[in-house]
Amino acid sequence: MAIVVMKFGGTSVANVERIRNVARHVKREVDAGNGVAVVVSAMAGATNQLVAWVREASLLHDSREYDAIVASGEQVTAGLLAIVLQSMGVPARSWQGWQIPILTDKAHGAARIMDVPGDKLRERIDAGEVAVITGFQGIEPEHNRIATLGRGGSDTSAVAVAVALKADICDIYTDVDGVYTTDPRIVPKARRLSKISYEEMLEMASLGSKVLQTRSVELAMVHRVRTRVLSSFVAPDAMPPVRPGEQTDIGTIVCDEDEIVEQQVVSGIAYAKDEAKVTILKVADKPGIAARVFGPLAEANINVDMIVQNLSADGRHTDMTFTVQASELPRALQVLKSARDDIGYFDLNSSADVVKVSVIGIGMRSHAGVAASMFKALADKGINILAISTSEIKISVLIDAAYAELAVRTLHSLYGLDAE
Amino acid sequence: MAIVVMKFGGTSVANVERIRNVARHVKREVDAGNGVAVVVSAMAGATNQLVAWVREASLLHDSREYDAIVASGEQVTAGLLAIVLQSMGVPARSWQGWQIPILTDKAHGAARIMDVPGDKLRERIDAGEVAVITGFQGIEPEHNRIATLGRGGSDTSAVAVAVALKADICDIYTDVDGVYTTDPRIVPKARRLSKISYEEMLEMASLGSKVLQTRSVELAMVHRVRTRVLSSFVAPDAMPPVRPGEQTDIGTIVCDEDEIVEQQVVSGIAYAKDEAKVTILKVADKPGIAARVFGPLAEANINVDMIVQNLSADGRHTDMTFTVQASELPRALQVLKSARDDIGYFDLNSSADVVKVSVIGIGMRSHAGVAASMFKALADKGINILAISTSEIKISVLIDAAYAELAVRTLHSLYGLDAE
Repeated sequence: MAIVVMKFGGTSVANVERIRNVARHVKREVDAGNGVAVVVSAMAGATNQLVAWVREASLLHDSREYDAIVASGEQVTAGLLAIVLQSMGVPARSWQGWQIPILTDKAHGAARIMDVPGDKLRERIDAGEVAVITGFQGIEPEHNRIATLGRGGSDTSAVAVAVALKADICDIYTDVDGVYTTDPRIVPKARRLSKISYEEMLEMASLGSKVLQTRSVELAMVHRVRTRVLSSFVAPDAMPPVRPGEQTDIGTIVCDEDEIVEQQVVSGIAYAKDEAKVTILKVADKPGIAARVFGPLAEANINVDMIVQNLSADGRHTDMTFTVQASELPRALQVLKSARDDIGYFDLNSSADVVKVSVIGIGMRSHAGVAASMFKALADKGINILAISTSEIKISVLIDAAYAELAVRTLHSLYGLDAE
Repeated sequence: MAIVVMKFGGTSVANVERIRNVARHVKREVDAGNGVAVVVSAMAGATNQLVAWVREASLLHDSREYDAIVASGEQVTAGLLAIVLQSMGVPARSWQGWQIPILTDKAHGAARIMDVPGDKLRERIDAGEVAVITGFQGIEPEHNRIATLGRGGSDTSAVAVAVALKADICDIYTDVDGVYTTDPRIVPKARRLSKISYEEMLEMASLGSKVLQTRSVELAMVHRVRTRVLSSFVAPDAMPPVRPGEQTDIGTIVCDEDEIVEQQVVSGIAYAKDEAKVTILKVADKPGIAARVFGPLAEANINVDMIVQNLSADGRHTDMTFTVQASELPRALQVLKSARDDIGYFDLNSSADVVKVSVIGIGMRSHAGVAASMFKALADKGINILAISTSEIKISVLIDAAYAELAVRTLHSLYGLDAE
């Protein structure tokens, strides 16, 4: 018997008919003798309706009350799934964040899970009862208040439950059948990956691939939770149940890199459109200037990503270019204008018409020359690189948005990722 | 400073605009220096949607899951009202059943409130924070599961909170401006009562007047909670705030009979359409026969209301007539058919085309002749009485449904209840 955590998102539980389909997936695992915990999101659209009411009530709203309201969506889905499972003869019980409890910190609206005591749940699961758990929410124990994890938080709930239950696998059911080498809407030859390492998935998630929430991958990596991305829209009986130790080629398994035998140099190409570029013209080229520029931005809680500094012709002034999230651009400009006297610069310019394209692969660690081949391929297509940033397992370049698709397709071919 | 509990039903909180109106009523009390707890229902329609989903999920559903699902409606309203109050500068916090906690027994779907520890709430209220409480729900502590009180349960929640807080008054805001001498849709001359005793209100509630839930009146009576029925659709600033010891002629106060100085003999005329009549023809007229008839009905949990037994011509057989709730009629007939051999009777007949009309007033205790004048007035109009039942403060008659309006109007005039 395996312990399986199954997570279903909003589109997979959008109405009672789809919840019935989810129940069939669950029943397949139960019939195979597996112990099952299911983590569910709110019905698609439900959370938006709740958020709209909150906004109508007041634009400046208390985050604790916001959380109490929006958490009701998952509560409804969990109860409905428990009822449908029971009607199929599968013993089931719903669990809300405060009932387990899923303990969080105090950051209402974007809370972090601190602990999930799993003994009580595990006991019920071992006794053959499916635990249907509300995703996205927990309880902040000091004030006994519901706290939500922020959009996409149900993935994190699922991994946290898997950790608590010492589950064999955490299956994240979505509307795609796995993690692809890149966005198939841009590159029709994109391939599903059978396996991807935690580190690579983390880069993919944070670089704009929306399949898994970044924090859920971090948590899975820290606790070594085997996490699988697969589709809920495949017929439940067309899929084999989880069997301990048995491998099937369904979905994409996010796992330890040791498990990935045939390592590619590059595993995937990600792109992010929500970047904006800021250039500060003619700042004094002297020690401490970077602190004067980036200090106020950090204080305003604005994340700076790529940074490029050019020496200017006169040797005394320099231009600095960096990127921020596009949604933060107006605030970033405001901060820099307020700090103009302190920083001392000639002018500011900015553009949100840029895109960040990234090449990701743990194989890069042992292969030199990936960056060089990347830059040459882009140059051959006449694509100008505005900024560069790198980590051990990825290289990102900032380019004009108009070249995004061309760049992604070029790199996808370059590294041999195209399907036959 | 008074402690005021204010309860608002589903139509009063049907959308954010109406919730804003509710918040203005609350602010009026806060501005007057009163400590306030508000009890809210789900937005009108919300509970129906949730119940529809449950039914779609499975007709035979687990009542604990049903409760977890439907309780989410009040959670949303409570959070929204707290947010709106805060936006008006009124400190407020929402409280769900499990947070206070409102402790209930295990009868999920129709749970009874066992206890409400009020100290924590009272502390916050004394510190100037409005407590916005979800009606209709509580928590069954042994299994840590949400339990609902059944339709209309928010009235009972409000009274229970008033008991816990030792409140000066429990104001039940509805879509009518008080309790009337009878249904104004039938008798346009019906008058609003300034005061009514708990005992009379209990009879009114259980006899078909839908203003207050029966259980809430019982609870108010046991704990002597002054309860007022008033309209939420009056402009919030057109109404004076509650002041301890001060009496205003707004709504209807349900209170101790000692408080009602000018006692009427009859306070109101109620009618109930959901009655059905069953007649058992020719049962043996011998000791123990009533037990054989009503025993099986009691076992099947069917409530029998009025009972009439006639001696038949031959002196050995008798006909028995009694009433049950119309919705229980098919079940009652089935039970009696199954028990036919044991009871021994010639035939059964039944009709749901009957109505129970009741005359209610604590003044009856000291005034003889109310029944006699009632029967005469009905006879004068040619209305046949099918069955009679009485208590210390009410007389009910069962009549053909066709005569319902005529009977109510006749009795309303007879006892001097018509408005000038």
